[in-house]
Amino acid sequence: MYTTQAWAKAAADSDFKKIDIQRNLCGEEDVTFAVKYCGICHSDVHVAEDHLKPVRSTNYPCVPGHELAGLVTEVGTKVTAYKVGDMVGVGCISDSCLACPTCNTGNEHACQAGMTGTYNGETKHGHIATDKSWTFGGYSNSQTVHQRFIIKIPPGFPLEAAGPVFCAGITMFSPLKEWGAHRGGLRVGIVGIGGLGQMGVQLARAMGNTVTAISTSPNKKAVAKEIGADTFVVSTDPESMRAAAMSCDLILNTVSVSHELGTYLPLLAMRGTIVQLGVAMNAHAVYQLPLMMRKLRVTGSTIGGMLETQECIDFCHRHKIVPRIKLVTADALLDIYKMLNSKNDSVVRNVLDIEASK
Amino acid sequence: MYTTQAWAKAAADSDFKKIDIQRNLCGEEDVTFAVKYCGICHSDVHVAEDHLKPVRSTNYPCVPGHELAGLVTEVGTKVTAYKVGDMVGVGCISDSCLACPTCNTGNEHACQAGMTGTYNGETKHGHIATDKSWTFGGYSNSQTVHQRFIIKIPPGFPLEAAGPVFCAGITMFSPLKEWGAHRGGLRVGIVGIGGLGQMGVQLARAMGNTVTAISTSPNKKAVAKEIGADTFVVSTDPESMRAAAMSCDLILNTVSVSHELGTYLPLLAMRGTIVQLGVAMNAHAVYQLPLMMRKLRVTGSTIGGMLETQECIDFCHRHKIVPRIKLVTADALLDIYKMLNSKNDSVVRNVLDIEASK
Repeated sequence: MYTTQAWAKAAADSDFKKIDIQRNLCGEEDVTFAVKYCGICHSDVHVAEDHLKPVRSTNYPCVPGHELAGLVTEVGTKVTAYKVGDMVGVGCISDSCLACPTCNTGNEHACQAGMTGTYNGETKHGHIATDKSWTFGGYSNSQTVHQRFIIKIPPGFPLEAAGPVFCAGITMFSPLKEWGAHRGGLRVGIVGIGGLGQMGVQLARAMGNTVTAISTSPNKKAVAKEIGADTFVVSTDPESMRAAAMSCDLILNTVSVSHELGTYLPLLAMRGTIVQLGVAMNAHAVYQLPLMMRKLRVTGSTIGGMLETQECIDFCHRHKIVPRIKLVTADALLDIYKMLNSKNDSVVRNVLDIEASK
Repeated sequence: MYTTQAWAKAAADSDFKKIDIQRNLCGEEDVTFAVKYCGICHSDVHVAEDHLKPVRSTNYPCVPGHELAGLVTEVGTKVTAYKVGDMVGVGCISDSCLACPTCNTGNEHACQAGMTGTYNGETKHGHIATDKSWTFGGYSNSQTVHQRFIIKIPPGFPLEAAGPVFCAGITMFSPLKEWGAHRGGLRVGIVGIGGLGQMGVQLARAMGNTVTAISTSPNKKAVAKEIGADTFVVSTDPESMRAAAMSCDLILNTVSVSHELGTYLPLLAMRGTIVQLGVAMNAHAVYQLPLMMRKLRVTGSTIGGMLETQECIDFCHRHKIVPRIKLVTADALLDIYKMLNSKNDSVVRNVLDIEASK
């Protein structure tokens, strides 16, 4: 074990405090890197504030963060793909069994023994450890993981903007591929133009689709168009919604607070699909007649496996897609959490600047 | 117009009474046939008893029935595909615009101007007429429709069992094709082993899939296995449900009364799909986390177009799939409706024997 620092919550309602934590030393298959930046995801808030209880309650101290980007400081003796100084990252997954058929086909996130999340994950597979029985995330100076969970950041890609690709990016990339948008030619709607949504708009556009940005905030129109949206719909404006009726083949819904997915069904064309992506805990009231008449599909998706995550950042680099970010320091964390809990009224992902934080 | 007889309800809570009705004469593109048999569908109950109000209220007198089978008595001068004496049928659709791209690609049921149902349908497209502004269904001695809405019953197929193929059969056949089960090799679950379910089991099996029959009635096990189910699950028995957890790639849910679709989600494997098929009017409480974790899909489907309906009965004939039916007479209608409203505890489709009815 080695000691490093991290910003942690001691309880759901406490402030963030810098504490010492222990991580496993760099084993023969491991990579250790200095975390330089860590994106702040809405899921961080859900876990750090224990919103997912009783489904999965949070262990404290809790160190959130699963959008890590940094520079390699040490590699294990069996590691050949990475060397000291390389730009690397870690996303939502930090361990899995690495033995089941699901892991072995690049779907570590769906590991049959249950993947270990980058924070608040049970350290049960033996490739990662802390001084507790759960993982500590990326609001930290250093991280060590098995090389299988390392993502290579393409040289030239801005390090500070890489982290959000491993969570927000892959969360949009995976369902776009799953539902055929990577071949282009679809009409894709993106609900929620925040951290995830801005990636969805850019990815869907780069894949050759027409894109409708759907938001409750009329003031996001300009930026949505700037990043590639062809059409902008204000979901709280009945007129705007009517004008877009049945105009989407695929909708990616990033809303991460309680809502009714039925709101968006009128936007779907015949055989249209809505993919729920946010951690919304409410029950949606779904009537089956509209699904039947237009063969609509309601589904969901979370992140993606390691291969697909690598593919995602490589795609972003090739198409010059860079998440719009804002660098923040640790003393701003509580305010950002408050903003994410109410309404994300900006189209940028907040990214924690580790070195600039105290 | 010509006069024929039909069994009609004068109000939602009245008994069936034989009345005279008027239908359009056989035009140059029309086919008139003597209705010999008409299947009794759960939808007949919903419409005849005005369950769909306020979505679509029922006009009275109401003559239900959209599983018609009979013998041609007259054909229009431009009709070459049918001749007097041929076995023909009519399903759920009796008219559509026949001009929109949807109609012209064989999807008359999804006509952009709105298809006209075989009963309680608005006679707005001009190819069918009655003395009212709505259609009268198959509980009747004679029917006349445009040849486009006629299905040819393959010679040798039992006439009395053909009607249910045009509604119950195609309702199962269409989603099996939509979700790839026609290529075989899937694990298909069928919820509800009644009129629709028995067709689903037989069709899914004949397409080369393994079939799980799912029912609240343990006493349907023997007959479910007899018609081709590999496994039988009692949905009200937690032990039986646990044993079948994550065992289906595709579930066709025929339940036509209020229920929670969430009951069946644990049976779906990763990327599994549940297709809602019955006229259940309740809101389902759908949580998105299970959809996200296993990429489950919730969708719906209704009947199919004319080409696919023809394909369905041709497939049934080739694979010797014949709906299990029970012939009944008009005086039993109310009792059958009562049974369908409570619980369908038999695996047969009731079929009205027109000639035997008074």
